[in-house]
Amino acid sequence: MGYDLMTFGEAMVRLAAPSYMRLEQARSLDVSVGGAEWNVAVNAARLGLKTAWCSRLVDNWAGRLIRNGFYHLELGAGPRPSSVTYDRGHSAVSQMTADMVDWKALLSETRWLHISGITPALSPTLAETVLEVFQTTSQCNIRTSYDLNYRGKLWTPPQAQQANARIVPFVQVLIGNEEDFEKCLGIRAQGTGKDYSALGVENYQQVAREAVKRFANIRMVGTTLRQARTGLLNDWQTLLYDGQAFHVSRRYEGLEIIDRVGGGDSFSAAVIYGLLKGWAPAETNEFAAAYSALAHTFPGDINWATYEEAVKVMGARGARISR
Amino acid sequence: MGYDLMTFGEAMVRLAAPSYMRLEQARSLDVSVGGAEWNVAVNAARLGLKTAWCSRLVDNWAGRLIRNGFYHLELGAGPRPSSVTYDRGHSAVSQMTADMVDWKALLSETRWLHISGITPALSPTLAETVLEVFQTTSQCNIRTSYDLNYRGKLWTPPQAQQANARIVPFVQVLIGNEEDFEKCLGIRAQGTGKDYSALGVENYQQVAREAVKRFANIRMVGTTLRQARTGLLNDWQTLLYDGQAFHVSRRYEGLEIIDRVGGGDSFSAAVIYGLLKGWAPAETNEFAAAYSALAHTFPGDINWATYEEAVKVMGARGARISR
Amino acid sequence: MGYDLMTFGEAMVRLAAPSYMRLEQARSLDVSVGGAEWNVAVNAARLGLKTAWCSRLVDNWAGRLIRNGFYHLELGAGPRPSSVTYDRGHSAVSQMTADMVDWKALLSETRWLHISGITPALSPTLAETVLEVFQTTSQCNIRTSYDLNYRGKLWTPPQAQQANARIVPFVQVLIGNEEDFEKCLGIRAQGTGKDYSALGVENYQQVAREAVKRFANIRMVGTTLRQARTGLLNDWQTLLYDGQAFHVSRRYEGLEIIDRVGGGDSFSAAVIYGLLKGWAPAETNEFAAAYSALAHTFPGDINWATYEEAVKVMGARGARISR
Amino acid sequence: MGYDLMTFGEAMVRLAAPSYMRLEQARSLDVSVGGAEWNVAVNAARLGLKTAWCSRLVDNWAGRLIRNGFYHLELGAGPRPSSVTYDRGHSAVSQMTADMVDWKALLSETRWLHISGITPALSPTLAETVLEVFQTTSQCNIRTSYDLNYRGKLWTPPQAQQANARIVPFVQVLIGNEEDFEKCLGIRAQGTGKDYSALGVENYQQVAREAVKRFANIRMVGTTLRQARTGLLNDWQTLLYDGQAFHVSRRYEGLEIIDRVGGGDSFSAAVIYGLLKGWAPAETNEFAAAYSALAHTFPGDINWATYEEAVKVMGARGARISR
Amino acid sequence: MGYDLMTFGEAMVRLAAPSYMRLEQARSLDVSVGGAEWNVAVNAARLGLKTAWCSRLVDNWAGRLIRNGFYHLELGAGPRPSSVTYDRGHSAVSQMTADMVDWKALLSETRWLHISGITPALSPTLAETVLEVFQTTSQCNIRTSYDLNYRGKLWTPPQAQQANARIVPFVQVLIGNEEDFEKCLGIRAQGTGKDYSALGVENYQQVAREAVKRFANIRMVGTTLRQARTGLLNDWQTLLYDGQAFHVSRRYEGLEIIDRVGGGDSFSAAVIYGLLKGWAPAETNEFAAAYSALAHTFPGDINWATYEEAVKVMGARGARISR
Amino acid sequence: MGYDLMTFGEAMVRLAAPSYMRLEQARSLDVSVGGAEWNVAVNAARLGLKTAWCSRLVDNWAGRLIRNGFYHLELGAGPRPSSVTYDRGHSAVSQMTADMVDWKALLSETRWLHISGITPALSPTLAETVLEVFQTTSQCNIRTSYDLNYRGKLWTPPQAQQANARIVPFVQVLIGNEEDFEKCLGIRAQGTGKDYSALGVENYQQVAREAVKRFANIRMVGTTLRQARTGLLNDWQTLLYDGQAFHVSRRYEGLEIIDRVGGGDSFSAAVIYGLLKGWAPAETNEFAAAYSALAHTFPGDINWATYEEAVKVMGARGARISR
Repeated sequence: MGYDLMTFGEAMVRLAAPSYMRLEQARSLDVSVGGAEWNVAVNAARLGLKTAWCSRLVDNWAGRLIRNGFYHLELGAGPRPSSVTYDRGHSAVSQMTADMVDWKALLSETRWLHISGITPALSPTLAETVLEVFQTTSQCNIRTSYDLNYRGKLWTPPQAQQANARIVPFVQVLIGNEEDFEKCLGIRAQGTGKDYSALGVENYQQVAREAVKRFANIRMVGTTLRQARTGLLNDWQTLLYDGQAFHVSRRYEGLEIIDRVGGGDSFSAAVIYGLLKGWAPAETNEFAAAYSALAHTFPGDINWATYEEAVKVMGARGARISR
Repeated sequence: MGYDLMTFGEAMVRLAAPSYMRLEQARSLDVSVGGAEWNVAVNAARLGLKTAWCSRLVDNWAGRLIRNGFYHLELGAGPRPSSVTYDRGHSAVSQMTADMVDWKALLSETRWLHISGITPALSPTLAETVLEVFQTTSQCNIRTSYDLNYRGKLWTPPQAQQANARIVPFVQVLIGNEEDFEKCLGIRAQGTGKDYSALGVENYQQVAREAVKRFANIRMVGTTLRQARTGLLNDWQTLLYDGQAFHVSRRYEGLEIIDRVGGGDSFSAAVIYGLLKGWAPAETNEFAAAYSALAHTFPGDINWATYEEAVKVMGARGARISR
Repeated sequence: MGYDLMTFGEAMVRLAAPSYMRLEQARSLDVSVGGAEWNVAVNAARLGLKTAWCSRLVDNWAGRLIRNGFYHLELGAGPRPSSVTYDRGHSAVSQMTADMVDWKALLSETRWLHISGITPALSPTLAETVLEVFQTTSQCNIRTSYDLNYRGKLWTPPQAQQANARIVPFVQVLIGNEEDFEKCLGIRAQGTGKDYSALGVENYQQVAREAVKRFANIRMVGTTLRQARTGLLNDWQTLLYDGQAFHVSRRYEGLEIIDRVGGGDSFSAAVIYGLLKGWAPAETNEFAAAYSALAHTFPGDINWATYEEAVKVMGARGARISR
Repeated sequence: MGYDLMTFGEAMVRLAAPSYMRLEQARSLDVSVGGAEWNVAVNAARLGLKTAWCSRLVDNWAGRLIRNGFYHLELGAGPRPSSVTYDRGHSAVSQMTADMVDWKALLSETRWLHISGITPALSPTLAETVLEVFQTTSQCNIRTSYDLNYRGKLWTPPQAQQANARIVPFVQVLIGNEEDFEKCLGIRAQGTGKDYSALGVENYQQVAREAVKRFANIRMVGTTLRQARTGLLNDWQTLLYDGQAFHVSRRYEGLEIIDRVGGGDSFSAAVIYGLLKGWAPAETNEFAAAYSALAHTFPGDINWATYEEAVKVMGARGARISR
Repeated sequence: MGYDLMTFGEAMVRLAAPSYMRLEQARSLDVSVGGAEWNVAVNAARLGLKTAWCSRLVDNWAGRLIRNGFYHLELGAGPRPSSVTYDRGHSAVSQMTADMVDWKALLSETRWLHISGITPALSPTLAETVLEVFQTTSQCNIRTSYDLNYRGKLWTPPQAQQANARIVPFVQVLIGNEEDFEKCLGIRAQGTGKDYSALGVENYQQVAREAVKRFANIRMVGTTLRQARTGLLNDWQTLLYDGQAFHVSRRYEGLEIIDRVGGGDSFSAAVIYGLLKGWAPAETNEFAAAYSALAHTFPGDINWATYEEAVKVMGARGARISR
Repeated sequence: MGYDLMTFGEAMVRLAAPSYMRLEQARSLDVSVGGAEWNVAVNAARLGLKTAWCSRLVDNWAGRLIRNGFYHLELGAGPRPSSVTYDRGHSAVSQMTADMVDWKALLSETRWLHISGITPALSPTLAETVLEVFQTTSQCNIRTSYDLNYRGKLWTPPQAQQANARIVPFVQVLIGNEEDFEKCLGIRAQGTGKDYSALGVENYQQVAREAVKRFANIRMVGTTLRQARTGLLNDWQTLLYDGQAFHVSRRYEGLEIIDRVGGGDSFSAAVIYGLLKGWAPAETNEFAAAYSALAHTFPGDINWATYEEAVKVMGARGARISR
């Protein structure tokens, strides 16, 4: 009764201000759940994979709803960026040690393990735990992916690099953008500007090649590319490097942003889905681009789009009402 | 105590997911009422016509609110199309026969009859009823319009063509887009693509001329033209062919879409309004373009714009706050 | 225990239809508070100034919430303009006479007085009161600003010009757009179109120079420039003339409009803030442009942006989530 | 095409604070419509009568929704009474004169006229108009009812008595409680306490007999009796005196109050309904008691109960879920 | 990997009018899920049992949310009963045949099967299926319960009795009130009134004894007793007959009703829980009384109370805030 | 520019589940602010006192709204108690030391200081700070009150008694119920039951006399008495002992509970108000009873009742709509 995919990390109660309000302006907050690995697990399950999410919960209402902390979200518009504040210190997950779970048993009956760089960033204890989990994978017949996902509020670049230098040698599919590669692995493209605004396909190729060169275990490197026309209207594209060819997806232009949180997690879920299905990298990347583009059109962290909708968008043009 | 306009068809309770949510994601649904002929009747009444809506209602809360079924709406954004699912099978209207109403008495004191192609599509019984209603118009001094409004979930093109071939000979103002003309009447423009995305003014002229040629009774043919820049930003234009000249309205560029359902019904209502007032086709078309453009700026099926606002928009440029 | 800034005028309970609904369509209205001078006072206080708002309140729930009237707001989209209706006749403020407040005492311990042209427009009594308040400033060491803010529903151009001709001689910083200058002071640029749509930097310079020529006391003239791409997407820029140089701010392109009410009041608050801090006119103008651009991204009359956010936007480019 | 019932008076937009909030505490207000005569007309129409409501509307959104003013409602609980503040001064109805309507034509094809004492209280002009309307009834074959409905915020007892002394001689069915009879007609029961809290069946009989003695034209006198157990739990009963017998309804004990506004209007509508149907006074009163008891179980001014539900409650006991 | 409990039946999308509104009055409806067997399964799982719910779903949004139909709910107050209308005709479950599931395999690894009388009432096909499922239990080592749950809108007493006469011989724990026993099994107590309002402990004992006498397989008979003080204030008690002794729970007086739907399903879940845990009947009944009393204090069909809360209420008195 | 009252303590963002939902059931939470000393300060200010609230805030949105933590509230009904969970660990206030504020300067120009027992319970550091603040009062001409307010989740009885033994010698008006006196001061009445449910006037007198005997500085001892009829219907009464006489207020029977949080804080505010106004203890107590009874009729921590309403309730009986 094994799993196609297992993810390991923290999920939080998400409290979002409605209607583009500032948090202190709102008189009610919308409640949902989010967290990088939880998002990937939910999305993969919605796509049809048999999926497990491994975490540690508090025994109160927030734990019953699913949580180890809270995060407060404000959706921005125009020049106002969306803003997230976390209330996740001292969470149950952050004190978790490797011996609390029989990882070897779990991983033996699982086909793929995915973790994001947020999990080791939550505490030194957890960084050790993540490392042990990845080490266990080398004793099992299991594929692995890791989304670098750098968070400056959780750790510094030196701390991130120290931990990731030990983790990445166990990773087969590595996900991250230019900033992630620099902050988490110290790999920097030559033309990178200070705010990563010039992020383009060429720079990224340079970074991805360097990563594959440095870590022989890496089979693929992927990322999403967002170009903001206005605060709520973005262009969207994804990239997947298979060690030989660079696959660049169709460009989704003028994508309306209902909620941008979770776009990257949708990319991860779709890449895992495609590769588990045995699709070619190019096909996997196009599917992941469509699926993650759709993720922006729903409020909340998770992607409510179906497999069929993503496939349809891959080929579509206009946007008629489907009656 | 006659009517300026009578429409005949079904209305439904509309249950819409708020804030661009997926239906299964929403924890409350917004309730309103909609239905092609009901929309036309409400809009025409708001413009000032004395209007009747003829239908058949269920005797429960939904009937008291106005209904013969439900429809569930999800507003899309970006690449996600808006999605409508119907729960209207076995409705009261679909079992309606012509002898339930004294049509001759009703139509004798009415100046204009409007029906959409959804009504005959609801059941074979109803298709017969619609035909009898139209036949009755030939015995009364009454003008008629018909919006082809093809719905692939209700009938197939052959079924639609069989019914419409008998109905259209009684119609004076025919409304429909390229797809409607092909599916409902078998009239197809040469350059039409598979998904009607290349829909343009030239192709449409070809189709409209063919319709007038085939049915001598038709005095006018009209349609709306929507070009999607992004999911929520469209260009909008209307066309009216009076058998001789093609009238093409001003193009509303960058029209923000708050709710696109009911745009065509607003066009129908305004065309009827203008022609009943004795306006010239060009003027009627410009008014209908402005009025139906405004319809997109309100949530819900019906158009809350006033006559004065539509007239003002016909001449306006910017979008200042009117204080 | 003096004040940095005092403003004098009316505030109202704002009842706004949610989700772009028409007022008569809405089944609940969102309650907040707004009013030109109240907005300026609140914004200045949020920026860090010690601020007083002088007004007169009714002794009922609306007064307890803050009010002298109501205003009903409908947010437009596309070709539908936002619409405001006022229910402020016979308000407490409109009957206010100068002897109800010891203005000399109050103004002696205040550094800046700001009033908008709405206050004298509310009633002839109030116009006299405003004049007396400004006359009192000449006996105190206090700086003054006045936002012309013409409101055609409150008075006619001749009435406005008669009152303003007596008020403006006491003003040091004058705020207003082309329409304000023509309607309130009779100063008109040569190229001005009928609907002020061609409003550009050149025309405005002509008007501002004329104002400074006519009233020797004026030290600065400022305005905001809005160019609507679509109903909800504007370009935004501000101008400040210091009697010698014209300072034109960076242009905020593709600014998404969550709520456009109060943009001008944010400009006033930021100009006052900068000048009180002793900043140069160019710097003040850039800050005011950024701060008033941000004001459009929050629902409600007031600007929830912080000083730090405005400074950050002055230099920023993209719109990433700030985590 | 006559009417069973016509009522004449003002309706207002009702803005109610949700969830027992204080008005200044609420951040959204619930919008509906209410007004004594409008309530009676709506209820009578829902019961199945052909009903007209005569009024005068403002040409703005509030008029389009139905209005001549606003009222603000706060629902109380426990020792906190519900509180209503009116914003109806200078309304369109209050300036209405009798010559604006062809009353004789209207009343000739109507079977029953109902007005409440609020209408003449709105302005001296309107008091004259009401008197003229009632005088016209003496030239038509029409039945009349009048609900005294004393409102201390609109006029004083002497003013009310002067106007009512001229109106009541045209009334056949008079509705009012002890306080109404004292304030509006100067008829006072002997045992009445200062706050009318001892209001009982005996006292009321004394008052009703006196009214019938004084005005020979009165055929019936009716009222509702409310006894508050707690703020939200009342006992409810109605009385109808037919000039000979006193009919006292079944007592509804422990009636939960969802919204108490409009209970009296429901009684009026049901009494008119019963008498128009030719029912005996006792039966009419029992029906009116059940129907007005049900009115308390819906939010809003109007009674959403059906005729069938009222009949069922007349005989019922428990309160099972009807599946 | 077996189950403690399996239930089999339909669940629906529940659309409830908020704030005691009438359905046609509401402008939004609250969405949740409900259905007798689904409720029992969810509650049992929340109590800690490993639970399965067997059903058949439609492949659209309602099926993805969980459904085979809709039900519309109006919460009553005072004399207005709560009202439920169903929109469940032709549902997926109602066409389900026994061969669609490998019942023998499923039931072999399950400890308890529970079905309610609604399932066989949905269609003759389904009645056959339910019978076959119960017949299969006789080949497995599994305990069974059946909640008679008579629904007059789904079948008549003769139809119900015909089906139940074949089903009940396989049932060990039978749940139902006096009305259920009469309508479903033809067992009637002597003193029963027409509307079952005199439902008391004595009458019920008579009925329960008769059931056990007629069906030798029945080990226990249970029911809930509700006495309405007012519409929203009930007394609540439960009964469990173990074939020898009658266990009558503590009486919960003055129980406030937030939502009464699902009270009986909570009783079923708790009885199953207690008996599976090996508790004595008296203890099981007290627990079920407390747990089902708590169910009334939450909106929605399911019981959000925890095991710990139910145990605490069994012994508690007052209602302090637990901080 | 002194203050009538200063309070010192923490306030939190209150996130409450709407409509009696369980927290994990709610999809939006209502946001407001609460905290014992903040509540007292707000209420006293609304009554007309010049009031200061001294605290320490976090520099994020929660601090801008007012906060040092969060609390999550679930309103109970029937046997389900209301439930509060706190998320206030490591808050800004809890690390506050006495030297952060110039207490002597502040207290010299203040007439009354009020603190609750929650403040010293938040951390040992804060207990020291509170003690120093009270010690400072002995050097100023200032009156003091202290609400024992025992919270078992913050400290144990021995910890509470150790701190309070040093604080109470500086207190003039001591507020607390039987449980508070036992847990905080070790004073226990003879007849007290385990759950304080038998809490009556006699027992309390014993405790209050003992407190005054033990601490010579105490001039008054007061408390509120709540008797729950049902979860949402309580009887309410207050007591004030002036060292000689026991003043027992009128009993508010059948008080409906919209929100019971903050009832005690309303009592404190009203007692301080009455004594500052120089009222006699009996009068003060009656006012405090009425004012705190009204507090239960508003959602939220604070009391939206006015002085005038409280006075009116002191003499009133029924609960008519005040129009």
